Amino acid sequence: MTAPASFTGKRVLVTGGLGFIGSTLGRRLADLGAHVVLVDSLIPEHGANPFNINGYEDRLQVSIGDVRDEFSMRQLVRDQDLLFNLAGQTSHLDSMADPYTDLDINVRSQISILESCRKHNPDITIVYASTRQVYGKPEYVPVDEKHPLHPTDVNGINKMAGEWYHLLYHHVYGLRVTSLRLTNTYGPRMRVRDARQTFLGIWFRRLIERAPIEVWGDGTQLRDFNYVDDVVEAMLRCASDARANGRTYNLGGQESIDLVHLAQQLVEINGGGIYRLIPFPPDRQRIDIGHYFADYSLIQNELGWRPQVELREGLARSLAYFRQHHAHYW
Amino acid sequence: MTAPASFTGKRVLVTGGLGFIGSTLGRRLADLGAHVVLVDSLIPEHGANPFNINGYEDRLQVSIGDVRDEFSMRQLVRDQDLLFNLAGQTSHLDSMADPYTDLDINVRSQISILESCRKHNPDITIVYASTRQVYGKPEYVPVDEKHPLHPTDVNGINKMAGEWYHLLYHHVYGLRVTSLRLTNTYGPRMRVRDARQTFLGIWFRRLIERAPIEVWGDGTQLRDFNYVDDVVEAMLRCASDARANGRTYNLGGQESIDLVHLAQQLVEINGGGIYRLIPFPPDRQRIDIGHYFADYSLIQNELGWRPQVELREGLARSLAYFRQHHAHYW
Repeated sequence: MTAPASFTGKRVLVTGGLGFIGSTLGRRLADLGAHVVLVDSLIPEHGANPFNINGYEDRLQVSIGDVRDEFSMRQLVRDQDLLFNLAGQTSHLDSMADPYTDLDINVRSQISILESCRKHNPDITIVYASTRQVYGKPEYVPVDEKHPLHPTDVNGINKMAGEWYHLLYHHVYGLRVTSLRLTNTYGPRMRVRDARQTFLGIWFRRLIERAPIEVWGDGTQLRDFNYVDDVVEAMLRCASDARANGRTYNLGGQESIDLVHLAQQLVEINGGGIYRLIPFPPDRQRIDIGHYFADYSLIQNELGWRPQVELREGLARSLAYFRQHHAHYW
Repeated sequence: MTAPASFTGKRVLVTGGLGFIGSTLGRRLADLGAHVVLVDSLIPEHGANPFNINGYEDRLQVSIGDVRDEFSMRQLVRDQDLLFNLAGQTSHLDSMADPYTDLDINVRSQISILESCRKHNPDITIVYASTRQVYGKPEYVPVDEKHPLHPTDVNGINKMAGEWYHLLYHHVYGLRVTSLRLTNTYGPRMRVRDARQTFLGIWFRRLIERAPIEVWGDGTQLRDFNYVDDVVEAMLRCASDARANGRTYNLGGQESIDLVHLAQQLVEINGGGIYRLIPFPPDRQRIDIGHYFADYSLIQNELGWRPQVELREGLARSLAYFRQHHAHYW
């Protein structure tokens, strides 16, 4: 676990701060004694949910604003020690249907944030939430950071460009930047209304609603999963360890699992429920990436991070959370 | 040479059509009997120059419009057989000073063009002008298409994203697309007012004005050059050969040459003039790419293209052109 002392009294900005990972990170940082500002524009299709900071309202400052607006960002980044840059559009299908909005949110906003930092707070430390989507359909698994980048959808291209902007501002302007390529992240506070934050969200919802889980294709696709607390821990390490400066790291799960076995495990943990295989919807088939799981040995070797929460345990905690709080999530 | 028959009666749209390469391509296509529409927004800092179609005004249709505007593009792409997509911002320094505009012109516009094609003319064949800048600082030379992409400036990131969009629309929607990664292209009709289209432009101007050429750094940087007619020939081959569909090719010069020897050769051809070495300006140093020259064997093997115009000959033609027409270029 990260030494709490690293964050006591630190001034921290989290973009996408009312979202799934942003709010979980914000709560943890508040527990560690940091002064946290969460910025979020609460776009309905994204992950933000005011209930995500339930119980922490007096310990987290919320600023409603849009990261695409450089004028707002200039004010927000001033005097901050750390920036966790998590704002983004994550739906692959939405990105294909409306590439302009995905471009604005996942690329233009990064320019706005990085320009603000270089002009008004060049000493800030930035951790950027990138995605395994930059790799596209893997040529080999497990995928390490040397794997070629060839994204299969608009979201992947834009997230890749967003990541490159971060690295460029590190190389050219000396900003302190780490990029984390997240795989499927799950846990309490994720968006479960629909499949916009991985299919696992809608699976939780459907199980609790006693509706069948839909597994697309033949269900043999391998995936890996990180419980959100493990992702938060990786972000904190990147922010507090100078070795992370200028680096790009994969995160990854303890194990890879195919979708049918994942569905079976979920039904078992839930104590009931059904899943069914259905053919890939055509729009989804065209951008599917086949098998994916990550090699996370680089961050393990350099920063000592590895996922701690077992899949079964994480799934159980998630189901319990959404069963208790579903009224706030759908 | 490309068979003229391939283009007789063809309906062709050229974006950036009043620019350096666009106008040269347009003139050639008109000579081959194509019906050509040149679209250009005549942004002052870009390469457009109405004089570039001098003598061809009645054989080339010009449409003043901005490729960022999907509504205009929808009309323009309808019923075209071919699209040469050349509109772009090329200045590396401008892209660092104003990343938003570079993003709009080099990425957003590509979405507008590709969305228009997929919705209103999915049978069109597209040739996209990409750039060696996507490779960044080479890890080895000559650079082939397998070289990792790690652009060193905003322009390189955005051009890379623009190229990825083209390939994505090929893979997902089946659009016929070829991407050509151009190296330094030079010749008559290039922008020579300043260094926004390679340093060679301003060198031509300064020589003709009897001002000293400025060579940055120690002048040992290797580069390769393509005379514009060779680039036009490559574009025509990509547009008329089904093997080019979905492919990405490097273009490259017959030889690589360092900047001091290039300057010496130019002075010699010009019959006079001087050059001087000056230290790299800091803003330029930060994004410099060191040595670069391309391996163009892929397009040579697949489409039979290779550069035909020798550097000395191309430089002589360029100097002669600008000496005669300088009143229209600065």
